[in-house]
Amino acid sequence: MWGGRFGAGPADVMREINASIPVDKRLWRQDIAGSKAHAQMLGAQGILDAADVEAILGGLEAIEREYEEQGVPEHIELEDIHMQVESRLRELIGDAAGRLHTARSRNDQVATDFRLWVRGACAEVDKALAGLQAALVERAGEHAESIMPGFTHLQVAQPVTLGHHLMAYYEMAKRDRSRFADCARRMNQSPLGSAALAGTSFPIDRHATARALDFDAPTANSMDGVSDRDFAVEYLACAAQTAIHLSRLAEEMILWASQPFGFVKLPDAWSTGSSIMPQKRNPDAAELVRGHAGRIIGAFTSLMVTMKGLPLTYSKDMQDDKAPLFEAHDLLDLCLAAMTGMVGSVTFDAARMRAVAASGFSTATDLADWLVREHGIPFREAHHITGSAVKLCEARGGELELLTAEDLATIDSRLAGTSLPDFSVEGSVRSRTSAGGTSPVRVKEAVEAARKELGS
Amino acid sequence: MWGGRFGAGPADVMREINASIPVDKRLWRQDIAGSKAHAQMLGAQGILDAADVEAILGGLEAIEREYEEQGVPEHIELEDIHMQVESRLRELIGDAAGRLHTARSRNDQVATDFRLWVRGACAEVDKALAGLQAALVERAGEHAESIMPGFTHLQVAQPVTLGHHLMAYYEMAKRDRSRFADCARRMNQSPLGSAALAGTSFPIDRHATARALDFDAPTANSMDGVSDRDFAVEYLACAAQTAIHLSRLAEEMILWASQPFGFVKLPDAWSTGSSIMPQKRNPDAAELVRGHAGRIIGAFTSLMVTMKGLPLTYSKDMQDDKAPLFEAHDLLDLCLAAMTGMVGSVTFDAARMRAVAASGFSTATDLADWLVREHGIPFREAHHITGSAVKLCEARGGELELLTAEDLATIDSRLAGTSLPDFSVEGSVRSRTSAGGTSPVRVKEAVEAARKELGS
Amino acid sequence: MWGGRFGAGPADVMREINASIPVDKRLWRQDIAGSKAHAQMLGAQGILDAADVEAILGGLEAIEREYEEQGVPEHIELEDIHMQVESRLRELIGDAAGRLHTARSRNDQVATDFRLWVRGACAEVDKALAGLQAALVERAGEHAESIMPGFTHLQVAQPVTLGHHLMAYYEMAKRDRSRFADCARRMNQSPLGSAALAGTSFPIDRHATARALDFDAPTANSMDGVSDRDFAVEYLACAAQTAIHLSRLAEEMILWASQPFGFVKLPDAWSTGSSIMPQKRNPDAAELVRGHAGRIIGAFTSLMVTMKGLPLTYSKDMQDDKAPLFEAHDLLDLCLAAMTGMVGSVTFDAARMRAVAASGFSTATDLADWLVREHGIPFREAHHITGSAVKLCEARGGELELLTAEDLATIDSRLAGTSLPDFSVEGSVRSRTSAGGTSPVRVKEAVEAARKELGS
Amino acid sequence: MWGGRFGAGPADVMREINASIPVDKRLWRQDIAGSKAHAQMLGAQGILDAADVEAILGGLEAIEREYEEQGVPEHIELEDIHMQVESRLRELIGDAAGRLHTARSRNDQVATDFRLWVRGACAEVDKALAGLQAALVERAGEHAESIMPGFTHLQVAQPVTLGHHLMAYYEMAKRDRSRFADCARRMNQSPLGSAALAGTSFPIDRHATARALDFDAPTANSMDGVSDRDFAVEYLACAAQTAIHLSRLAEEMILWASQPFGFVKLPDAWSTGSSIMPQKRNPDAAELVRGHAGRIIGAFTSLMVTMKGLPLTYSKDMQDDKAPLFEAHDLLDLCLAAMTGMVGSVTFDAARMRAVAASGFSTATDLADWLVREHGIPFREAHHITGSAVKLCEARGGELELLTAEDLATIDSRLAGTSLPDFSVEGSVRSRTSAGGTSPVRVKEAVEAARKELGS
Repeated sequence: MWGGRFGAGPADVMREINASIPVDKRLWRQDIAGSKAHAQMLGAQGILDAADVEAILGGLEAIEREYEEQGVPEHIELEDIHMQVESRLRELIGDAAGRLHTARSRNDQVATDFRLWVRGACAEVDKALAGLQAALVERAGEHAESIMPGFTHLQVAQPVTLGHHLMAYYEMAKRDRSRFADCARRMNQSPLGSAALAGTSFPIDRHATARALDFDAPTANSMDGVSDRDFAVEYLACAAQTAIHLSRLAEEMILWASQPFGFVKLPDAWSTGSSIMPQKRNPDAAELVRGHAGRIIGAFTSLMVTMKGLPLTYSKDMQDDKAPLFEAHDLLDLCLAAMTGMVGSVTFDAARMRAVAASGFSTATDLADWLVREHGIPFREAHHITGSAVKLCEARGGELELLTAEDLATIDSRLAGTSLPDFSVEGSVRSRTSAGGTSPVRVKEAVEAARKELGS
Repeated sequence: MWGGRFGAGPADVMREINASIPVDKRLWRQDIAGSKAHAQMLGAQGILDAADVEAILGGLEAIEREYEEQGVPEHIELEDIHMQVESRLRELIGDAAGRLHTARSRNDQVATDFRLWVRGACAEVDKALAGLQAALVERAGEHAESIMPGFTHLQVAQPVTLGHHLMAYYEMAKRDRSRFADCARRMNQSPLGSAALAGTSFPIDRHATARALDFDAPTANSMDGVSDRDFAVEYLACAAQTAIHLSRLAEEMILWASQPFGFVKLPDAWSTGSSIMPQKRNPDAAELVRGHAGRIIGAFTSLMVTMKGLPLTYSKDMQDDKAPLFEAHDLLDLCLAAMTGMVGSVTFDAARMRAVAASGFSTATDLADWLVREHGIPFREAHHITGSAVKLCEARGGELELLTAEDLATIDSRLAGTSLPDFSVEGSVRSRTSAGGTSPVRVKEAVEAARKELGS
Repeated sequence: MWGGRFGAGPADVMREINASIPVDKRLWRQDIAGSKAHAQMLGAQGILDAADVEAILGGLEAIEREYEEQGVPEHIELEDIHMQVESRLRELIGDAAGRLHTARSRNDQVATDFRLWVRGACAEVDKALAGLQAALVERAGEHAESIMPGFTHLQVAQPVTLGHHLMAYYEMAKRDRSRFADCARRMNQSPLGSAALAGTSFPIDRHATARALDFDAPTANSMDGVSDRDFAVEYLACAAQTAIHLSRLAEEMILWASQPFGFVKLPDAWSTGSSIMPQKRNPDAAELVRGHAGRIIGAFTSLMVTMKGLPLTYSKDMQDDKAPLFEAHDLLDLCLAAMTGMVGSVTFDAARMRAVAASGFSTATDLADWLVREHGIPFREAHHITGSAVKLCEARGGELELLTAEDLATIDSRLAGTSLPDFSVEGSVRSRTSAGGTSPVRVKEAVEAARKELGS
Repeated sequence: MWGGRFGAGPADVMREINASIPVDKRLWRQDIAGSKAHAQMLGAQGILDAADVEAILGGLEAIEREYEEQGVPEHIELEDIHMQVESRLRELIGDAAGRLHTARSRNDQVATDFRLWVRGACAEVDKALAGLQAALVERAGEHAESIMPGFTHLQVAQPVTLGHHLMAYYEMAKRDRSRFADCARRMNQSPLGSAALAGTSFPIDRHATARALDFDAPTANSMDGVSDRDFAVEYLACAAQTAIHLSRLAEEMILWASQPFGFVKLPDAWSTGSSIMPQKRNPDAAELVRGHAGRIIGAFTSLMVTMKGLPLTYSKDMQDDKAPLFEAHDLLDLCLAAMTGMVGSVTFDAARMRAVAASGFSTATDLADWLVREHGIPFREAHHITGSAVKLCEARGGELELLTAEDLATIDSRLAGTSLPDFSVEGSVRSRTSAGGTSPVRVKEAVEAARKELGS
């Protein structure tokens, strides 16, 4: 009469909603590492005797080998990875297993395991970002002099170099790495020993377990230790920002591969075909990178919403910290690998890029700047004169390179008889030598500096 | 040198990011149903001959049985469920399989399959919501006269009946069902025959395939047909709203089960224990329902972000429509079953509820209303007099039931000698007979009406 | 010592965080309408006498005129629009004002006012969407035969007509209107008379106030009546979906206006210039429409997060329902007006569009379909033959129109001596006459049907 | 015929959607500071002559005084704060104003202004967080020995001290400050001199302007310089995390102020009354803090969605960076002030807290730990024995303090004749002396350390 799933009886639904093992089994290495550190400390402090500690360590190592070789079994009735490991330990070493949970609770245990996992995830992303940076620098070095249109509002604005454009993404990845590093450093405190929430009356040594697990220190407050998921939220904030950067590059790859742009040809390895249009070569990987940004932002939103308004200390809602983070990490990992592959192997059509860069009066700013520099005309006025020059060229059909001194004189009599410089896209790009500018000389310096930073 | 996953080679990453079969295999029934309808229509229109149609239908039915019994295999190199089915069909019936894709594209195929799935999901949720409503009505009927505190700002405000409180959730579920029904109705148009994006030159009959798949009509524009994911976004909007309602009820279950409230005792089947605190009985299921609202909102955000700013028509980003929707649906399904189970089996402590309802001067409004009604005092003034009466009772420690006419006279001389009515919580609740009010007589009517609506 | 803003003293901060008048003053018309309906009902039921009712109605009308002419003052100490109006009423009519709040609370008052406002907002958006549809239909009618490339994955896929492309957005707007209509209908129940949360003991007539305010009926449960903000959440869901549609059209406008595409020229009225690049004509309005989708999604997220997990009944958190909704509505209103203006006035470059449509082997599907139809080759095989033909053309540089029977014979000997049909983009588009297809004949029908639907 | 707002004509809509002055006028101080630094640098580099520089600086200072005294006017036709200032400068100093925009664009100008503003916002929030910490430490010091129930799953779990509970929030605020500091440090690079996107050919000195504006260095890549909004996204991530922390404390204040808990009495200055229930004292400020977390998360979502998928370099969508950030900052500022005020002035009912702490068998873990420590029983077994003891007490109605050795012997014969220690909540709390534990001695140390950290 209550419809829906109730054939199976409420108990089954409860077991299904409650069991986290299908998700948290990924923490098995961290769980075993944490238990080892805890057991050794209990031994060192005289809380367990040496024989128990030895039995526990031996058992944990056996489990480690088992899981390594055969995977982690999903015994739904054991609920989570912590009970799974402890239950297997009891099978292997008997009663001593029951002493491992002394001065510990699942609350501090899962907080510790998950931190260790996320800390490792930061390191993985850092490595993948470095890989993307290397690919960008490599291609930027090749194209430090290749000219392409620089866009604002997706309108041709000024010519830039392709190398300069690619190095913009190098900078983004650099900030991303910096954020993940801050995140990893800030989370690097051990909640182990917070116990359920209040600490414990056993004479434990939290500094020892912290050291054993490569944490900088124990967390300062036991209630905060078991209630805190900042590290997961911050990881997701970093991941979302990185995904947004990747989505911008993906959008450009998609635009550039489109026939009207024609700036790049994606290699077969990064394209797919169509089930109905045999001529298609689709930038699927780039589209998926762009799309996955949505899912990573969604995962982040999920955890923020879950944490909002929770009273202290541990609430079961917090079990929903892992699925979104694991998903976001897997997607980000895949996006970084795919984007690195694409950047490394895409073929740029430098001639097409240059041709578009030379359209749309992209050197108008150069003309205005020249009026300021050579004729002492205030910039705002120079801007207006240039506007008139553009209109004149537009009317007769031709770019600014064809502009003559006579043309300018019809706009502003002060300019009669002036000798016009070269307004080519090459000249324009060469002239932008200000720090961080697009001039090839600046781009080459940036590439060199980046290579040093990457240690390659 | 490009770090990260690149040991495996870019092609593997591409295959991994591109393959949707691990996710879209859930569409297998819909995919086969769509192919059957398409094949029959191609036969009826003379585009395929009868023998081919027969072979195709036979093959599809064989695949249906295979998948039913053995599950859907995940051949990553076949990319998605559509290629998986077609490839298996070729193995079974040979070349005729190659004729099935006539006048069709994966773009309209996936749009059709996914709509069918989401339409079915709406029906499932509707049934589960009806189950929750039945449980609420059942308990509301039992407790039409049980008194509990009605809260605003989580402060005791006025006494209400538990039945009335539970029926508020009945109303929410009713609106939720109404939204899912609108969603299902609006999406019920067939995109099949939109082909890649432009329609087709084959003389197909889209009305026939629409009818065969229980759609109301074909979609009106082929480009919209393959670009539209409104139905998935709208499903997620409905799911998020439902999850928010469930999170409110879950929050109340958690509050009510907390020792300071003590309003309910959750049955063992819906509680869990602690690994360190043997006395604990935790409302895990309610916490997970509350937490899952975060994930469902996150899934919704994900799809909105993915769809934002996509140019027409199909883009691969749209492959990210399924994972969030499937996740949200599974979570919602679980939450509805869990909440129905909890509502049906929770034990209410009516005495404790009544006791709290009688605290906090919860009948102050009754006093004010009585001043208005019996003494013709404007409400605002009555409100002030009542405030003074509350202060007086507070000062000497006691509820409003102990108030005397003499007390009132000290506040306002007009009230000297008045005879005070009963300000008990029972009297208060009984008096609120306005339409939709908390009076038992109203609650019983509401329960009756709901039972009729549910057809029980 | 507590830093920050505490110079001003806590009371000021409290007043500032608590006051909603700067936001909810927009509800003034609804508040007065609700109070009039309430006062008249109180009179009809004999709860107030005729003189009081007359005084109240006169006073409310005077306030209406005042606010109309002079705007609504923001007396922060009066907290919200409800107290603002009541306080002014007291100034105007004296004590009788104190009787207006009989059998009412701010909880049902604000729920009523806000519903009325949102219901009106739905009507406004509906009108604006109809305006956008009219603009789309107008331009689609002009361009029912204009050829442009149809894209999938932003790759040229098949030729379509511009009219067909524009009519895809007509369909989206149609669904949007249908959603807003459902939203307005579902919310159209009056919470007035729910009082604080429990209903009232006064003999009120909720049906009368519902009728007076054009609601279909009173809400069924008083606790739900004051706790429900579904109508606001649903409005925002509809707004977010509409904004996503607009963002897709905006993305296309931006792409089309970009030099590499060159499909459109935006009129001066919808473009802006640059402070440094005098040649620029930027599609600012389209970019803002795209960007505003982010803010509307953000507003929606905001309200979902706020409502999640709130226990019954009214909580002050719910005061945060208005700012996000007002913001989203204003932005959506502006986006619809801007997009309608752009669609109506943009200049399409049909020649450029046709030229791109004819590139990229866009008629390959036509070749494959022809092989199926004329030569009885299974589609999958025809797809492969066409792929080879594309490669051949690509190798020698030329589109499919140049393909000869001899070419085909080299790929598949069965095709020797066949006579090839016309593979022009015009022929392709003309042939797609399936229901909802891109053929001009279908597009003209769709335009006609749409005109009828719009009543123009 | 295009309905909606079109009475006013498209141009008005364009002006309205495009003008950012109502929002970005808040940048006026930063805009003037940036212009001063730019002008001085242009002078130092010989790009402007001394007279022009002097005139410009004088003019800018005059504008600064004007805006300070009279506010910033909103000339909608001047679009934004940059044009507003420049236009006023021209009125004041004439043609020299036209030279200020040399080697600069609005793209790098707004990026610089907004960074300066956000950097200042970080400093403000840091100060406010320090204020909250000070209030928490003050109250924690007072209540280092006050006993309250520690909750997990909102179930009474173990007794803790109120001081310890409050210090958990101190730790959260400490991490928040650390994140804002990282954010401010990472953003502290000057985009000024990136010009429109490509840098400039003028011999500017970006290091000089960076120094003048207290930046650590110029940004490294001009295209990144004008496209980057990471600093705003990161600010919002930090704000959202802080808001989530505040929402947790707010939730607790609301729970604690509720009659069933009765842990706190909120002072009048932080409560409000009811328009209908004269007895109410509502925790409005806490509810608004909790609700505002939704809006801050919404603002963050907004900017992430807006930035996702934008191609380089500047797009007008990015104008939507300011409204969400300003809103989030104002709300956060208010929330911090309100929470600081509440924490500082709330009255804790220590007796009520202790009473609840002593209920619910909160010292069961102490019993289990004692069995481990004194009797050498493995923890898992001790956990089971304790569970039986709880059941026994529950059955006869009484807390663990009443347990006798005889009781224990009936559960496990090994325990016959044991002498039971004190299982009071005071004893429990005193015993939890592990690092970061709840023992008063640890809490007092933590309070001392915090006072030092805060420099008070």
